[in-house]
Amino acid sequence: MNRAVYFDNNGTTALNPKVLQAMLPYLSQQQGNATSRHIFGRAARNAVDQAREQVADAVGAHPSQVIFTGGGTEADNLAITGVANALGSGKIAISNIEHPAVSRPALALKWQGWAVEQIATNQYGQVEKNTLETVLQKQVDMVSIMLANNETGVIQDIAALGEIARQHKVYMHTDAVQALGKIPVDFADLNVHAMTLSSHKINGPQGAGALILDKRIDIRPVLYGGGQEKGLRSGSENIAAIVGFGAACQLIAAEQPARHAALLGLRQRLEQGLSTLGAVIFASDAERLPNTSFFAFDGIEGETLVMALDRQGFAVASGSACSSDSTEPSHVLLAMGVQPDLARGAIRVSLGNDNDIHEVDAFLQALEIELSRLRKLTAVAI
Amino acid sequence: MNRAVYFDNNGTTALNPKVLQAMLPYLSQQQGNATSRHIFGRAARNAVDQAREQVADAVGAHPSQVIFTGGGTEADNLAITGVANALGSGKIAISNIEHPAVSRPALALKWQGWAVEQIATNQYGQVEKNTLETVLQKQVDMVSIMLANNETGVIQDIAALGEIARQHKVYMHTDAVQALGKIPVDFADLNVHAMTLSSHKINGPQGAGALILDKRIDIRPVLYGGGQEKGLRSGSENIAAIVGFGAACQLIAAEQPARHAALLGLRQRLEQGLSTLGAVIFASDAERLPNTSFFAFDGIEGETLVMALDRQGFAVASGSACSSDSTEPSHVLLAMGVQPDLARGAIRVSLGNDNDIHEVDAFLQALEIELSRLRKLTAVAI
Ligand SMILES: Cc1ncc(COP(=O)(O)O)c(C=O)c1O
Ligand SMILES: Cc1ncc(COP(=O)(O)O)c(C=O)c1O
Repeated sequence: MNRAVYFDNNGTTALNPKVLQAMLPYLSQQQGNATSRHIFGRAARNAVDQAREQVADAVGAHPSQVIFTGGGTEADNLAITGVANALGSGKIAISNIEHPAVSRPALALKWQGWAVEQIATNQYGQVEKNTLETVLQKQVDMVSIMLANNETGVIQDIAALGEIARQHKVYMHTDAVQALGKIPVDFADLNVHAMTLSSHKINGPQGAGALILDKRIDIRPVLYGGGQEKGLRSGSENIAAIVGFGAACQLIAAEQPARHAALLGLRQRLEQGLSTLGAVIFASDAERLPNTSFFAFDGIEGETLVMALDRQGFAVASGSACSSDSTEPSHVLLAMGVQPDLARGAIRVSLGNDNDIHEVDAFLQALEIELSRLRKLTAVAI
Repeated sequence: MNRAVYFDNNGTTALNPKVLQAMLPYLSQQQGNATSRHIFGRAARNAVDQAREQVADAVGAHPSQVIFTGGGTEADNLAITGVANALGSGKIAISNIEHPAVSRPALALKWQGWAVEQIATNQYGQVEKNTLETVLQKQVDMVSIMLANNETGVIQDIAALGEIARQHKVYMHTDAVQALGKIPVDFADLNVHAMTLSSHKINGPQGAGALILDKRIDIRPVLYGGGQEKGLRSGSENIAAIVGFGAACQLIAAEQPARHAALLGLRQRLEQGLSTLGAVIFASDAERLPNTSFFAFDGIEGETLVMALDRQGFAVASGSACSSDSTEPSHVLLAMGVQPDLARGAIRVSLGNDNDIHEVDAFLQALEIELSRLRKLTAVAI
């Protein structure tokens, strides 16, 4: 094997060559600023509008509900901070397994006087309906609960939770960054007012994301300036990235069912092997994204194993790969009641469309070797 | 002429093919998330670090002073909102010719209780030293004055103004988006604490910008999340765009003096022709960017002329091309004391590295024809 195997598709994905083809004209010919009225500007505007339709189509939304941003993090910030600033002050409730792109803006609101409540999750990291009911009984203005978790891959019943929020007339946002492309995502069905998407997690380019927003929601921009995206996201549009995001969304619509089956097949093989090697697979009984496996081996530190596997040519993540270096055990696992010692062993394999069965088998072999090496080292150390 | 001539380089520029070459590996091979620790993540991290050095080198800054953002607008917002939020409350003074990416975040601060003062400019749209002195005599916490104006191209003496701000111990930011690549820009020489740059204005890709920041300045992020860019700008890094921004910066360093002379030559020829046709050229006596010409013809509406020229195959801007549709006369011209009627006639030609003398001559010819056509129409209408 000369090239390393990439098993970190929840971190970022390879740009689909078809998507790159769609982008290249916008990278190689003179472009206009999409706000300009001349022929170059109009061409850019048309490209953005087409992408807006593609993104909307992929998630059952109307093009006018799509607000393009520079990525998932920015869209999450807009969904939280933008709505909070329009409301002025109040209380926000977020689940205790959110990505930092949701939990940190919520924390920032706390410094501004907002009340922030963490919604407890069950052993799978899912918010239960009666838990949300109880939380919403006490005057809440905003709720954010993610559709699929980036570490465990666990999927939540957002449609049911959204229904509860609706009954309480509470604004609800869901982060669907990890769900898009891996399971069907339909904005209307989810019963939420706002939903975050990110291009680079679906084999689209980095630098584009979107907030899908019910237009009745009052919201303030996070970035102010030239008034792009109906004033909700100023800044010259990144035309090529938006075009690529649109193209990637179109491919999802065409390919998602087939991808789902293929990924699930690979993961089953992977997890059979992992179980044989003695792994604890987190939330394996819950409904999960087809590509994600989060697991640990008792007594083996996750970070150490990630490094060892990296040397063997396998790129996997320990805990959340989207956040900066931290040796704290995963907050998601702790929220699920996993013991800190075991949580520290956590490793995530997130498969992608380019992975195949040989890579999975080679990985299991390498893992077996590294495990026995590390266990010997540990034995010696004790 | 089969292709339209692009004269809107202050709006956005064509991606330099060398820059695209530098970016392509990051668009066509498996990439890692720059926060991941495996080999793909480390490669991404190295690419970002190299670009950080290239950007720093182009503006005489230290790599540790470079905060990458998704563009100029975001960097302006960070410079204004980020510092204001760290200060808590106070007073911000901005010149009355700023880009909306500075003036709108300042306006948003006003809603949060900040005092916002507009600094008057002279007939060229420049802040005079004694004007700033007077403004700073009354307790001011932040100042923002742009280095070069996007509409007129007028350059300000930021080094001298920065010196005054320093004496008053006031945080000072400058928007150098339009200056970079067209005139020498040196962060240390400018005497400011923060400076905004944007990639797509210098033949780099859209989707990258930077705030160059004196590290002693206390600042809060605008976007919260995974903690990228030392916590100051969360969101997965747009590796290809950052690499392209770095490459574009490197080319500037090599080519800026030659570009300057070439652009100036073209503009002289353009403005001779414009004068012959009876144009009023705004701020023509002031020190200006070599590529920018902002002018009007008495009695001719700018928007109408832009459309007419567009039909003739020339892409120029009316007023500021970076902001959304608006038929208000340019706030920059009004600030300079230009009569609203004449200001409504304003047209901007902003030349780029790909333009040549034939395009300028063809433009002048087309302009002459359109002017006489429009003047006849006006005569008939009266
Ligand atoms: C669930 C989730 N939300 C948000 C983000 C942030 O999106 P982006 O990387 O596009 O900023 C990520 C990944 O980083 C994620 O996994
Ligand atoms: C002076 C100035 N500042 C800021 C910006 C915004 O930068 P960006 O287009 O990268 O968001 C522009 C152009 O749009 C500009 O001309």
